[in-house]
Amino acid sequence: MEVYVFRLFHRKERDKRVTTHCALVSRAFLAKKMFYCGDKDENLENKIKDVVKRFGGNFEIEYVKDWKNFIKNFNGIKVHLTMYGIPLTKKIDEIKKFEKILVIVGSEKVPKEVYEISDYNISITLQPHSEIAALAIFLDKIFEGKEFEYEFENAKIKIIPQERGKKVVKSE
Amino acid sequence: MEVYVFRLFHRKERDKRVTTHCALVSRAFLAKKMFYCGDKDENLENKIKDVVKRFGGNFEIEYVKDWKNFIKNFNGIKVHLTMYGIPLTKKIDEIKKFEKILVIVGSEKVPKEVYEISDYNISITLQPHSEIAALAIFLDKIFEGKEFEYEFENAKIKIIPQERGKKVVKSE
Repeated sequence: MEVYVFRLFHRKERDKRVTTHCALVSRAFLAKKMFYCGDKDENLENKIKDVVKRFGGNFEIEYVKDWKNFIKNFNGIKVHLTMYGIPLTKKIDEIKKFEKILVIVGSEKVPKEVYEISDYNISITLQPHSEIAALAIFLDKIFEGKEFEYEFENAKIKIIPQERGKKVVKSE
Repeated sequence: MEVYVFRLFHRKERDKRVTTHCALVSRAFLAKKMFYCGDKDENLENKIKDVVKRFGGNFEIEYVKDWKNFIKNFNGIKVHLTMYGIPLTKKIDEIKKFEKILVIVGSEKVPKEVYEISDYNISITLQPHSEIAALAIFLDKIFEGKEFEYEFENAKIKIIPQERGKKVVKSE
């Protein structure tokens, strides 16, 4: 299964940390790539590329200008995460059958059209919380916790789990 | 089981959104209360209290001045979430046996002492991502997905899941 993430309406100053978290969660929880629209942000892109270079894998980040066309033309199913949607627990078996998924995460205000052009509107609880948390839970459930076992290829930095303190192996 | 969250070293300007997300995730994923240290932040506290008032439940937020003493004196086990720790999957059965848990989430720089005074240092993947995501995954696994079913008491706003669009029931 291939999962892509689409982060809507990034604002360079206000969202820099939240969007960075979204991208890093996408990567760590095994999405292939994160697309984003709103402000094009070189700093954000460079930060993510730098993590990929050091921690491995092939995760990519790409700016999209026309979000509506992008969603419409994506050749897979489109799952929009929103607190107003159907609980993931009720739809997960159905969603897992698809080979290619675009997970759409918004920020505070998401236009009505996103609800309409998505194939699924899915909630991770019906409470206000965080698009970062919603994305992590969605990916964890879709990949059945595989992120805990996964090893990224070509990692220059590898963390060796410790009861206390930090152990890092570095290679060039 | 009672779970409390401790958010370390909040910085009023820089962390306002990330700490807000941590608090909302704590509430939505069934922690009792979030403590935080660093800058005391009335705006943050009011925002969270306002969500509780509208969406129900008894979640609380409380400022702590002396983080070290607070952790040391907490009468339950202390679980620090860090990418350097032992994977949650390896320790979850052990952790679930305890009645009272303090989950500690840091920001970028966490002093060595936190690793030492915690009973467990636990990783949610060995990759850099987000304390918000780590917290959500930890709580989801500890409570076995109960957050999807849970209904908060005394909610003035209730969301009715929809395939498309938003349905909200409001009461006074």
